Amino acid sequence: MAGEVLSRVQDMLVEKQIGALVVSSPESVTYSAGYEVPSQAFPIRERIVFCVITASGDQVMLVPDMETSLAQKRSLLKSVRDYNEFTDDPVAVIADVLRELVVTQERIALEDDYLPYPVLSRLVGFLPDATILPAKPLMDDLRLIKTAGEIHTLSRLAQIAERAIYYASERAHEGVSELEMAYHFYKSVLSEGAGSMKELIIGSGDRAEYANANPTARRLCRGDLVRMDVLAKDDGYLSDVARTAVVGDPTRTQRDTWAKLVEARSLLLDRIKPGVSTQSIFRFYQEYFEKVGLKPISFVGHGLGLSVHEGPYISRYHTGELRPGMVIALEPLYLASGEGYHVEDTIVVTEHGHELVTGLRDLSDLITIAGEAP
Amino acid sequence: MAGEVLSRVQDMLVEKQIGALVVSSPESVTYSAGYEVPSQAFPIRERIVFCVITASGDQVMLVPDMETSLAQKRSLLKSVRDYNEFTDDPVAVIADVLRELVVTQERIALEDDYLPYPVLSRLVGFLPDATILPAKPLMDDLRLIKTAGEIHTLSRLAQIAERAIYYASERAHEGVSELEMAYHFYKSVLSEGAGSMKELIIGSGDRAEYANANPTARRLCRGDLVRMDVLAKDDGYLSDVARTAVVGDPTRTQRDTWAKLVEARSLLLDRIKPGVSTQSIFRFYQEYFEKVGLKPISFVGHGLGLSVHEGPYISRYHTGELRPGMVIALEPLYLASGEGYHVEDTIVVTEHGHELVTGLRDLSDLITIAGEAP
Repeated sequence: MAGEVLSRVQDMLVEKQIGALVVSSPESVTYSAGYEVPSQAFPIRERIVFCVITASGDQVMLVPDMETSLAQKRSLLKSVRDYNEFTDDPVAVIADVLRELVVTQERIALEDDYLPYPVLSRLVGFLPDATILPAKPLMDDLRLIKTAGEIHTLSRLAQIAERAIYYASERAHEGVSELEMAYHFYKSVLSEGAGSMKELIIGSGDRAEYANANPTARRLCRGDLVRMDVLAKDDGYLSDVARTAVVGDPTRTQRDTWAKLVEARSLLLDRIKPGVSTQSIFRFYQEYFEKVGLKPISFVGHGLGLSVHEGPYISRYHTGELRPGMVIALEPLYLASGEGYHVEDTIVVTEHGHELVTGLRDLSDLITIAGEAP
Repeated sequence: MAGEVLSRVQDMLVEKQIGALVVSSPESVTYSAGYEVPSQAFPIRERIVFCVITASGDQVMLVPDMETSLAQKRSLLKSVRDYNEFTDDPVAVIADVLRELVVTQERIALEDDYLPYPVLSRLVGFLPDATILPAKPLMDDLRLIKTAGEIHTLSRLAQIAERAIYYASERAHEGVSELEMAYHFYKSVLSEGAGSMKELIIGSGDRAEYANANPTARRLCRGDLVRMDVLAKDDGYLSDVARTAVVGDPTRTQRDTWAKLVEARSLLLDRIKPGVSTQSIFRFYQEYFEKVGLKPISFVGHGLGLSVHEGPYISRYHTGELRPGMVIALEPLYLASGEGYHVEDTIVVTEHGHELVTGLRDLSDLITIAGEAP
């Protein structure tokens, strides 16, 4: 997968006449090296990591010494170097690397949006003859269109996440706690082959309104809505799939609200294809929600990849249009005082339309969680 | 718990004649607000959060609008404000807050080590009459000594982590994959009441040498070492407890190496008390390891709290002495080509010595994982 990423990066550098790209953020490091560095996942932010890719094809990864053995095994960059976490200055070391690669008189892209002030200012100080430009717009642009490998990973994870929702819901019932429900999610996600659970949101009853709350000891009661959002992770790539269940029989109001959400989902899906403006999709969602008496939030979708939220944003505030290779989380969401309804799917924009990756089961009713213990 | 934290912060500000502390890093926000903001856990870094605490007792938390309802419910800071994620500039908003609180002519501590360059420079630009100083040394110093509430949380989590290791090991056997083992960890950790698993390290066979590798589909073979390190999380606080198992009967070499590690642990524990220099503990570890023919790494312990690694570092490179209220992960670790042995415990430094929080079972032998399926 990352072979394709690395050649895209190099092509971009050549095209834009940039001598070297130097990245450090967890997302950019994972994107370049092809695996997630554990110290960045923890995170131990003091353990700075640098990946350098040059227009002429050099690739160097610099890691703190605790990460050396794994980097040697996993990194897709041609060369791995390390520094002593406590005595070496990784900024000075990477400046040496850039001198070795003979790019210090060229245009160099750095992540000024990520690097803290003291790191960035020292690194720039080591490069008096370089022209520094921000790496973020370049990386955002590259990451907007996924490679075939990325689409494969994201699709697999999305399906794992969706199956986990049904698996856990079938094993829950009135009286089970959100945390007890959580480990059915973990079991399903891990046994299906995801590397870990990045975050799991289970909000039941009046907790359903909290946008992103972790499971608690709260026990499910009959009549509760249960909002579930699954962020499984594999080598840094994420799922973001949500569904809503009800414990026991739904009320008429619950059923009606859900039907509006599912109708919104279906109408929105029809609009997902190349060339469509993201704002027009958002406006459609907003108008539909207002028509059916639900309060919209300020976005209804976002790109998904190494970040939970990345481009393209389908929001009130972002412009842009859909292009083939984008992977989108589409999420009509209705949160109100004491309740929350959420349906979130993963969609790949294709040459002529889209592929809905999730949507394993019929959504015309809320998922049912048993109203009593079996 | 955080009531005690907030009064410590205010006392520190008064003592050091600092008008306001303004923090944004996930650790400092969690420390101040008393809960972990989900957008920071994901992380969605664009969603900047600010917590302001002043010497005169004002407390304001500023969150993106998706986080408002949870902040209103969970934040321990007196006032919660929000901004529109897509249209507002949180830096301008927090500058307004500081003006309202009449601290813009005073000394203001900012996290220059965390804030990216564009955020920090704009914030400083909004505060032309303030004297800016770095918040990190202040926060590090506060966080070095835990409150009673923090010690309670960290102790509970450490014991949950340790029990999970035995729980999962008892359910594993030859042929089980690391990932299958992982969900027993998750089940145990969640059912015992931790909020989530931040990271789980399971390295079996030749993967035992990788410092911090996540579980994979690799299946346990007889004779494998299995290195397990459990980072459970509750409201941002972490466990960091490690043990080593062997699948089937250990070889004499495996047993001997383990015995050296456990002997090191025991001798090191005797040295954990107030007033002892951390470097003297490290030197003892280094000399002991060299004497018994093991290669030491450059640290043998570290503080534990909202970060996996924080002060005090018990390393070759750090100076300092142990003080009551410190919580320490002590971890004799031996990694070599194709093998890894690790024993990591949680220890509270007390007025007159220490309290070993973990150590539920006798460690004279490696944990045994069944050599065949039951």
